[in-house]
Amino acid sequence: MKKAKTGRRPAKTRPRAKAPRGKAPGAKGKAARVRPLFGKVALIGVGLIGSSLARAIRRNKLAREIVGCARTPETCRTILDLGLVDSVTSDPGAAAKGADLVMICAPIGAYKSIAPAMAPHLKKGAIVSDVGSVKEAVIRDVGPFIPEGVHFVPGHPVAGTEHSGPEAGFAELFEGRFCILTPPPGTDKRAVDKVAALWRRAGMKVEIMDPHHHDQVLAITSHLPHLIAYTIVGTATDLESHIKSEVIKFAAGGFRDFTRIAASDPVMWRDIFLNNREAVLEMLGRLSEDLAALQRAIRWGEGEKLLDLFTRTRAIRRSIIEAGQADNGLTPRKSAKPARAPRGRRKSSRSARSRGR
Amino acid sequence: MKKAKTGRRPAKTRPRAKAPRGKAPGAKGKAARVRPLFGKVALIGVGLIGSSLARAIRRNKLAREIVGCARTPETCRTILDLGLVDSVTSDPGAAAKGADLVMICAPIGAYKSIAPAMAPHLKKGAIVSDVGSVKEAVIRDVGPFIPEGVHFVPGHPVAGTEHSGPEAGFAELFEGRFCILTPPPGTDKRAVDKVAALWRRAGMKVEIMDPHHHDQVLAITSHLPHLIAYTIVGTATDLESHIKSEVIKFAAGGFRDFTRIAASDPVMWRDIFLNNREAVLEMLGRLSEDLAALQRAIRWGEGEKLLDLFTRTRAIRRSIIEAGQADNGLTPRKSAKPARAPRGRRKSSRSARSRGR
Repeated sequence: MKKAKTGRRPAKTRPRAKAPRGKAPGAKGKAARVRPLFGKVALIGVGLIGSSLARAIRRNKLAREIVGCARTPETCRTILDLGLVDSVTSDPGAAAKGADLVMICAPIGAYKSIAPAMAPHLKKGAIVSDVGSVKEAVIRDVGPFIPEGVHFVPGHPVAGTEHSGPEAGFAELFEGRFCILTPPPGTDKRAVDKVAALWRRAGMKVEIMDPHHHDQVLAITSHLPHLIAYTIVGTATDLESHIKSEVIKFAAGGFRDFTRIAASDPVMWRDIFLNNREAVLEMLGRLSEDLAALQRAIRWGEGEKLLDLFTRTRAIRRSIIEAGQADNGLTPRKSAKPARAPRGRRKSSRSARSRGR
Repeated sequence: MKKAKTGRRPAKTRPRAKAPRGKAPGAKGKAARVRPLFGKVALIGVGLIGSSLARAIRRNKLAREIVGCARTPETCRTILDLGLVDSVTSDPGAAAKGADLVMICAPIGAYKSIAPAMAPHLKKGAIVSDVGSVKEAVIRDVGPFIPEGVHFVPGHPVAGTEHSGPEAGFAELFEGRFCILTPPPGTDKRAVDKVAALWRRAGMKVEIMDPHHHDQVLAITSHLPHLIAYTIVGTATDLESHIKSEVIKFAAGGFRDFTRIAASDPVMWRDIFLNNREAVLEMLGRLSEDLAALQRAIRWGEGEKLLDLFTRTRAIRRSIIEAGQADNGLTPRKSAKPARAPRGRRKSSRSARSRGR
């Protein structure tokens, strides 16, 4: 993708305080030593993602001004106290007024009320984008409200933690992760480029994707794993109390990972499942069939079937490591060190990586 | 639990090289400056767990001699090359001969052939233990072969990684984790204490548990999560190829965690599922019911039901963090830092922890 015209400088450029620079077009006063990508950015919703984006914008000087929009007075005060925004409002329309970029960072279920509230206040040439984990429903709910002359660039920075709220955010959240943009056909290319530049400068790798395809891919890589984690942790909470207390005490490898996933923001995830219903139900149907087959194999002692599946899944992990989306987990350990001085016949070529037995 | 008579010194005691010590009973020569817990330890199977135990024994001088038993000549050479053992054999009987402790560290399916092979060679007073993730089946398969005068202390160090083989092990694997011992009624208390002392000196917290109860607890905390992870990654591998490649590329939060779990040793896990069949099928049945209920809630748009479950599961995560079995994930991040100097009205009492929105 071509870089945006206004975003040519490399990421993380900082103003060299003393070195005088040539006149940059549009430069006026101190703030313009590095020209920000945007003048005024409005963040509608300032939770984990919104507050992390605010921090990344501040750190990399990507906007001249940030206005935050939060539902409750308490959150409004928090985001001001944290120094994340220049001003706050609880009215999406007031936030959108005069904004060059309006980024919706609220749970998807809130888009239906945010869109009509902000739409009449959008200025000509403004860009509306979002960070929602579902894209077809967002285009369905927000698209019809976007006025002529305003650009709509739906997006999904694929990043997060199990924590939520403005205090949980951090500027590094996006680094090295993918941001998927799903602009509807005919969207102004310069607008897409500007949103892409924003996420690139926050450290992300940007991809363009069809919204339907996005929703299918995320259904299996993100939504279904969360659904399963919520379910299994729920199943555990319903156990008889003498087992339940032990479950918490001995929360081992697998289950502990699941509880972390199942601690993610409840409202956000409710909205994701309700808004990516078809894709999630489709993937869940496939999973249920596979689970029933595995259940049968265990009941009938069919070891070969189990071994075959477990060997295939191990190979997938290797593909993901090779694709650079996970490390091999060996880095922080001392696994390569022999327990004592190696013997004479030790082969120096022996790999430090673990192997199958 | 009372400390074993032979294991009174605090963990990690090292010989003070120059300081002469009083005659310890049974001391002979250099090796006896710190009296090890065991004379000869036989490790039947030297994969991730066996090799990690060998490293921990070496590091903490818990035995005078380690003999390793591996099936293939290649593994025998590897564990010698790595300096993990003093000698190797592929015959469990030869390994067991003269051993004070025989620790079975092989996949559970191999116990049936290991037990009769080693039994005739066990000396009087020897202890047989193991590291298997299922305990009722182990007692069923090994118990009948244990000769009169030999002590059988089944155990399960709840630790591991997704890697396998002798090169994947490391001495620190056990630190801070639980080891569950499930001695049958009437087992010699001193034998139990000695095995407990071994794992404590390797850094573990030791608990005694009924084997049936162990198998139920582990079915939900470990076996079921692994089964689900294997299934979901398997479901993804069966997707149409244009989605599959994207799944690998965009392997996000949830799915990436699942692929790590689903990369665990295939033979070991086949044996776990086949040997903890009843408990796994029971928990899988409960999970399937809960999953069907959730599927229905998504199909019918019942947001309240989803929100209720997701809120309950978040509370479970907090219990686990409070029980010290997981950190809150905030330590390595800068989430508590404001993006810029806080304003005058910033409250110093504000928590650095994330909150719900």
